[in-house]
Amino acid sequence: MALTVVGSVAFDSVRTPFGERERMLGGSATHFSLAASFFCEVNLVGVVGEDFDERYERQLTERGIDTQDLQRIAGGKTFFWRGHYDFALNTAHTDTTELNVFADFDPQLGERSRNAEIVFLANIQPQLQRRVRAQCRRARLAALDSMNLWIDSEREELLRAISEVDVVFMNDAELRMLTRQPNLVRAARELMARGPRAVVAKLGEYGASLYTPEGFFSLPAYPLESVVDPTGAGDSFAGGFLGYLAGLGEADIDESVLRRAMTYGSVMASFNVERFGCERVLELTRAEIDERFEEFRRMTAIEALPAGERA
Amino acid sequence: MALTVVGSVAFDSVRTPFGERERMLGGSATHFSLAASFFCEVNLVGVVGEDFDERYERQLTERGIDTQDLQRIAGGKTFFWRGHYDFALNTAHTDTTELNVFADFDPQLGERSRNAEIVFLANIQPQLQRRVRAQCRRARLAALDSMNLWIDSEREELLRAISEVDVVFMNDAELRMLTRQPNLVRAARELMARGPRAVVAKLGEYGASLYTPEGFFSLPAYPLESVVDPTGAGDSFAGGFLGYLAGLGEADIDESVLRRAMTYGSVMASFNVERFGCERVLELTRAEIDERFEEFRRMTAIEALPAGERA
Repeated sequence: MALTVVGSVAFDSVRTPFGERERMLGGSATHFSLAASFFCEVNLVGVVGEDFDERYERQLTERGIDTQDLQRIAGGKTFFWRGHYDFALNTAHTDTTELNVFADFDPQLGERSRNAEIVFLANIQPQLQRRVRAQCRRARLAALDSMNLWIDSEREELLRAISEVDVVFMNDAELRMLTRQPNLVRAARELMARGPRAVVAKLGEYGASLYTPEGFFSLPAYPLESVVDPTGAGDSFAGGFLGYLAGLGEADIDESVLRRAMTYGSVMASFNVERFGCERVLELTRAEIDERFEEFRRMTAIEALPAGERA
Repeated sequence: MALTVVGSVAFDSVRTPFGERERMLGGSATHFSLAASFFCEVNLVGVVGEDFDERYERQLTERGIDTQDLQRIAGGKTFFWRGHYDFALNTAHTDTTELNVFADFDPQLGERSRNAEIVFLANIQPQLQRRVRAQCRRARLAALDSMNLWIDSEREELLRAISEVDVVFMNDAELRMLTRQPNLVRAARELMARGPRAVVAKLGEYGASLYTPEGFFSLPAYPLESVVDPTGAGDSFAGGFLGYLAGLGEADIDESVLRRAMTYGSVMASFNVERFGCERVLELTRAEIDERFEEFRRMTAIEALPAGERA
């Protein structure tokens, strides 16, 4: 099955205690697409400027990503973000944001993008998310991400967008902020009452939790000794999660499938942060991904009590 | 096997968004002992004042806890703590601390306490922890907890105490502060290089992680809709963890045993926070404990990929 993502494509300049990079390929739709590309066909809906040359585009197309709906604005400049992370690496500090062509982004979906079975509305204005969602009439599963900016400025519209998707990806602080509910179990339940069948709480260095009406599942982050650049970890997570589901075809998406999707999400996020920007994911193999999937399974397994041990 | 714990026995007055309680039975050694008492014999080494009447003591002895080494200081007053939690329940705000008889605590271990096979040095002055550790010559496993106060004021002595135990329990902020290392994998490795064979990072609402030379294991906190009072959760965790190990007898403590200990720790912590102080643990049954243990196993299980699914 195919997957469509709408979101930002950007140039990122990032400094961390481990070094720095200038104008790397970045943006939510980029990180998402690259992660998902290991599992399924991906259509990327976004916008870039004239400065987005072939070298950048090739990084997407060489992974098989369909960039037909990546608009190029003549005379325009691509979204640019400059940021840095301090020693603890848990907070991105923004130094510069230049929205450029992204400020007037009006997603245009060709037939292939519209017909995808799974659609991911990355962190953009809720109005745009809803417009894209409405165009993907054949989607059997839609998901979105968002951020504090939209919770602050467009809460009602964001809640409408949420009522129109199946899976919500947000970090724990955003879930609390949106629902005004400090308890995450309750926050997730409140959102599910509006329509979604699953809420994924992204917990940064603590991993991610899955809330469904049937249950709860949580995975730690992969224990890395060096996190080099956390930029894009959340979108890589969503890319692994939804990419895996799209790759399954028509199979039922039950609880155990969702748990494996969580695991592939965690795997892709863990690779993403090992190097700057998309560097690690661009050289990744499916064998490495499946190996780390098995490591996650071993890492979290609790054996039953031996017979007779119980008091 | 028997377990000895040295630590505080206190009166706690606590206010949370769910209500308040005056002068409940509290303290680190109390929460620890009650949790461990479901699994093994427990000797409690501590100190109380004349105001610690029979009603309080009975809460310990009725769970089979040996209070022979709980000193009573004539004319003295028991350690008193008053605190509150705000809406998010993740930070304890101290309103009053009256150390009283705990200020001059000089642990006295009778023969039974000294001969225990497992010893837990709860959060007290590192000098006292070392003195108790030295007296427990037969202990096959010793563990300690600590806090920012001792990391600040007695870092070197605390590192010496750590070099003399097998398991370290600390929260993630304390591990970072002690090792001056923001990455927890590295922080744990640095501590293990000093002697301990395991480091348990307590992550509050995110659960707990186990670091050993062989591997990494992490468990989420039990997803409760209402956390009523988090006081004592960390000590209940250590009580479930070490109590389970003591209850095993002479069995080898390998990686899968440690993971089950983590799970029993998480189970006991989750019950502890469901009501004020020790209220929930005091009415708990072993059947409820084992049921939640199984829930944790189900909650974290990832099924293997179905045959042929891999790309």
